[in-house]
Amino acid sequence: MNFKEELQKKTEEVQKTILRYLPKEEGFASNLAAAMNYSMKAGGKRLRPILMKETYAMFGGTGEVIEPFMVGMEMIHTHSLIHDDLPALDNDEYRRGKKTTHVVFGEAMGILSGDALLNYAYEVLFHAFDLSADNERVVLALQILAAKTGIYGMLGGQSVDVENDGKPLSLSMLEYIYKNKTSALIEASMMVGAILAGADDGSIRTMEQIGYLVGIAFQIQDDILDVTSTSEELGKPVGSDEKNHKTTYVTLVGLDAALQEVERLSREALSLLDGLEEKNPFLYQLVEELVHRRK
Amino acid sequence: MNFKEELQKKTEEVQKTILRYLPKEEGFASNLAAAMNYSMKAGGKRLRPILMKETYAMFGGTGEVIEPFMVGMEMIHTHSLIHDDLPALDNDEYRRGKKTTHVVFGEAMGILSGDALLNYAYEVLFHAFDLSADNERVVLALQILAAKTGIYGMLGGQSVDVENDGKPLSLSMLEYIYKNKTSALIEASMMVGAILAGADDGSIRTMEQIGYLVGIAFQIQDDILDVTSTSEELGKPVGSDEKNHKTTYVTLVGLDAALQEVERLSREALSLLDGLEEKNPFLYQLVEELVHRRK
Repeated sequence: MNFKEELQKKTEEVQKTILRYLPKEEGFASNLAAAMNYSMKAGGKRLRPILMKETYAMFGGTGEVIEPFMVGMEMIHTHSLIHDDLPALDNDEYRRGKKTTHVVFGEAMGILSGDALLNYAYEVLFHAFDLSADNERVVLALQILAAKTGIYGMLGGQSVDVENDGKPLSLSMLEYIYKNKTSALIEASMMVGAILAGADDGSIRTMEQIGYLVGIAFQIQDDILDVTSTSEELGKPVGSDEKNHKTTYVTLVGLDAALQEVERLSREALSLLDGLEEKNPFLYQLVEELVHRRK
Repeated sequence: MNFKEELQKKTEEVQKTILRYLPKEEGFASNLAAAMNYSMKAGGKRLRPILMKETYAMFGGTGEVIEPFMVGMEMIHTHSLIHDDLPALDNDEYRRGKKTTHVVFGEAMGILSGDALLNYAYEVLFHAFDLSADNERVVLALQILAAKTGIYGMLGGQSVDVENDGKPLSLSMLEYIYKNKTSALIEASMMVGAILAGADDGSIRTMEQIGYLVGIAFQIQDDILDVTSTSEELGKPVGSDEKNHKTTYVTLVGLDAALQEVERLSREALSLLDGLEEKNPFLYQLVEELVHRRK
């Protein structure tokens, strides 16, 4: 099985796990459940749960305790997409070729289903206590995940991004946004995998650093593709950053420097992975692919 | 000290506890912290944390572990108010005489600060593990609190309320909304207090039942005041339910039956409290006042 087939198989496995944890569409609040499930079933790469599971496996984890964390992470991520798409934020009508949640269910249900998914993430996460013999590890994983999601992580980055929409950004502010809006949940995914598998503190910090590097490189690659790719390759309009007067890594430092920075970040991430005693060739290749993707 | 003075003193104590847990308004995301703190400092009765603390005290609880739960509960409640006030939901410009969060900080920050408060509630709640010798009790309290907040609690009730705005409601749907939108967090407050103090299962269930009765009675009393009170007494417009063609307990069963139902519910709640071995005269009086309030 080549890498692409293996990735597809793993994505389908994660998909099945997610489906088992979704709320039932029944009772008076069935429409709220339907809105939550619509967005959770809308597809996506399931990147964060896969990174989490592969890190867990790399450090020797074999238990079911990882499942609620994988699902909770994807629910938190999906919550952020639903609210991101709302008229008051990015006002997007389509995501991955499908109508966004608020377009299908109305704006009020868009807001409430995002809220309900964020809260349901924690409801699901708390099942982990019933699946683990080591509650201390579960508590630490929860603390990290919550911190990387909130004002000192994803939601902080999201708020600064939204507030400065259309304004010129400094490099330090752009890096703050990329680190928090994109890296934070990737850091959390890799840290949680390591923590639950019983990795030592040094390895947990290494996975945090790898997550940080992958997130930033991923985001800069996004900026690069917007100027180097074609609409056909990318499956979405290109050149939109310039049209929207958006500050990106490419507009700030130029295309050549951006390409070099992606190289530097990805080399550092792969070398950190290489330096670990534990090995997972699939994870290594996934990190490589993420940074060098063409779409 | 009479009851009113005692209540004021306790409210001020809770207020001080809350202030100690708020995020600092610094760094790039300082405006998000400001929006979160604006709504958290906007006042309110702090009813849920007070009920939680008094239940905890009644069952002999004396530790600090109750603090993150009191603060987390108030953050969850405040999150729901911010999102409730948004243009896509109730579109309220004022709450308790102050401009609502989205009016002051913009709609995008209204959405994100509500999200950040819901998540921060869990960040704060996870501190409880560092303050307790009995993590099993903390886990149970977290599970109950999360369940009463989400699709099977407050957010479920909220979604059904919003979806049926302006439509005629059946009595069973109205009761579903009142139970979930209002009672659920009161039930959780009283259950968490009991759980953390080490109360037995029967007592925890009794507190859930009392919370349920108090929440429903509180909500029906709201409906009653809208037709029996004056704007001066209530501090807000009266008769708005009829004007908005809103289905309430009073429009469904009539004023007399509504008054009788409040009496029945409150008698039952007080008799359940009376039946417990543990006593807290302040809590008893608070429950009495809540149900019979004139505003």
